[in-house]
Amino acid sequence: MFNTTEMSLSKNKIKQIRSLNEKKHRSEYGTFVAEGKKLVLDLLGSCRCQLLAGLPDVLREIPPFSAEEIVEATPDELKKASHLKTAPQLVGVFYQPKQALEESELAGKLHLVLDGIQDPGNMGTIVRLSDWFGIQHIFCSHDTADIFNPKTVQATMGAIARVNVHYVDLNDLLTRNNSLPVFGTLLEGENIYKAELPENGFIVMGNEGKGISPDIQKLVTHKLFIPNYPANTQTSESLNVAVAAAIVCSEFRRRG
Amino acid sequence: MFNTTEMSLSKNKIKQIRSLNEKKHRSEYGTFVAEGKKLVLDLLGSCRCQLLAGLPDVLREIPPFSAEEIVEATPDELKKASHLKTAPQLVGVFYQPKQALEESELAGKLHLVLDGIQDPGNMGTIVRLSDWFGIQHIFCSHDTADIFNPKTVQATMGAIARVNVHYVDLNDLLTRNNSLPVFGTLLEGENIYKAELPENGFIVMGNEGKGISPDIQKLVTHKLFIPNYPANTQTSESLNVAVAAAIVCSEFRRRG
Repeated sequence: MFNTTEMSLSKNKIKQIRSLNEKKHRSEYGTFVAEGKKLVLDLLGSCRCQLLAGLPDVLREIPPFSAEEIVEATPDELKKASHLKTAPQLVGVFYQPKQALEESELAGKLHLVLDGIQDPGNMGTIVRLSDWFGIQHIFCSHDTADIFNPKTVQATMGAIARVNVHYVDLNDLLTRNNSLPVFGTLLEGENIYKAELPENGFIVMGNEGKGISPDIQKLVTHKLFIPNYPANTQTSESLNVAVAAAIVCSEFRRRG
Repeated sequence: MFNTTEMSLSKNKIKQIRSLNEKKHRSEYGTFVAEGKKLVLDLLGSCRCQLLAGLPDVLREIPPFSAEEIVEATPDELKKASHLKTAPQLVGVFYQPKQALEESELAGKLHLVLDGIQDPGNMGTIVRLSDWFGIQHIFCSHDTADIFNPKTVQATMGAIARVNVHYVDLNDLLTRNNSLPVFGTLLEGENIYKAELPENGFIVMGNEGKGISPDIQKLVTHKLFIPNYPANTQTSESLNVAVAAAIVCSEFRRRG
């Protein structure tokens, strides 16, 4: 039924899976790890799989030749390999997809730009909502959380297979593509509920604590603000960055 | 300058702070822990503080009599006491505020209802956005994440001091207050961008995996749906619950 089957997950393989918690190892091997039956099955449809390890019952549902190597594992072995609190029934090691992009494709569409997002959970949640709102390309500064961090992968809930995430010099990107409008949420921005929003451009979301960096702020052509309620009352100073990204994307799309 | 000052954080106190990671200890003592200078200072304005522990430099900025006990601590002691990866400069143990509510206050306002939210980060993010959108009361099923979980407290970014969170029997609550509309996001719901939304009612958000429970679904009077884009394409199956809550609250408030 399988191309290759070993009957247990060796200590060495467990160590290798766990090592993918660190970016240097992910970069070295060009792989990342995903956990849980639903997520792994979702990714099998679109990402090349190096290793699948799972409970025998679960592996029976996997089509043959789904992965270069398929290994039966005990709950205890899966627990040892897992980055999660609750041991998954299935773990997959996938090759990182290559993100190719012709910048000429960018015209006429909406894109997200992440300027120093730190939290892997926020990062994954933003990839998931981008997928929901039909945003196919996300451009990240080099100091943004790694898309292949296990916590990020889990938070994307599979959207990692459909959204292209590029790590680039944001200054270069926005300067080279300066025919497209650049939107950013800033305290002095225009009420987003009343602003005219086109169907193309870059939406910049900034770091959790510091917001959009000064260099990138200079390139923002349209400053937007999500009003609190009632207006001008003392509430929280800001919204979580994934929440703000969601509201902005929803505003762009509700008019489409 | 301080009412009480000890010169170091004893092992016993470190153990006591760390024990507040567990709900049974939080319930036993009636307290919760908050970490980081900004959050602790924010809470000092509104919650009674049992213990403040911080670096000497940071404590110098604290008004006298801010807490029943103020203790100078070394970075190492703070690291040991902390639930966070990066040791904070200031840790506070606060008494859990008592949440009183007259149900007659509920009329004419918008409220959130959380039906089994599991993730403390999602829970805290929802409290933060409720504060932003002027929602003062959140009603949670008994199986919803604890508002006083340290991860939740941190994710509220201080909004915990301004939003009232009640753990109740949701069935009872919604049945007793059946003059108010009950909104829920469900796949078969009406396009929220086109729906008429009043300024009062309950907005129900369901569990991360299972959504709104069947019993509570029966009490939803207005089913809403956040459309994906482009409509009817294959994207992610759902949005993160805090993201969905944000979009729904934003839709209610943008018309206010």
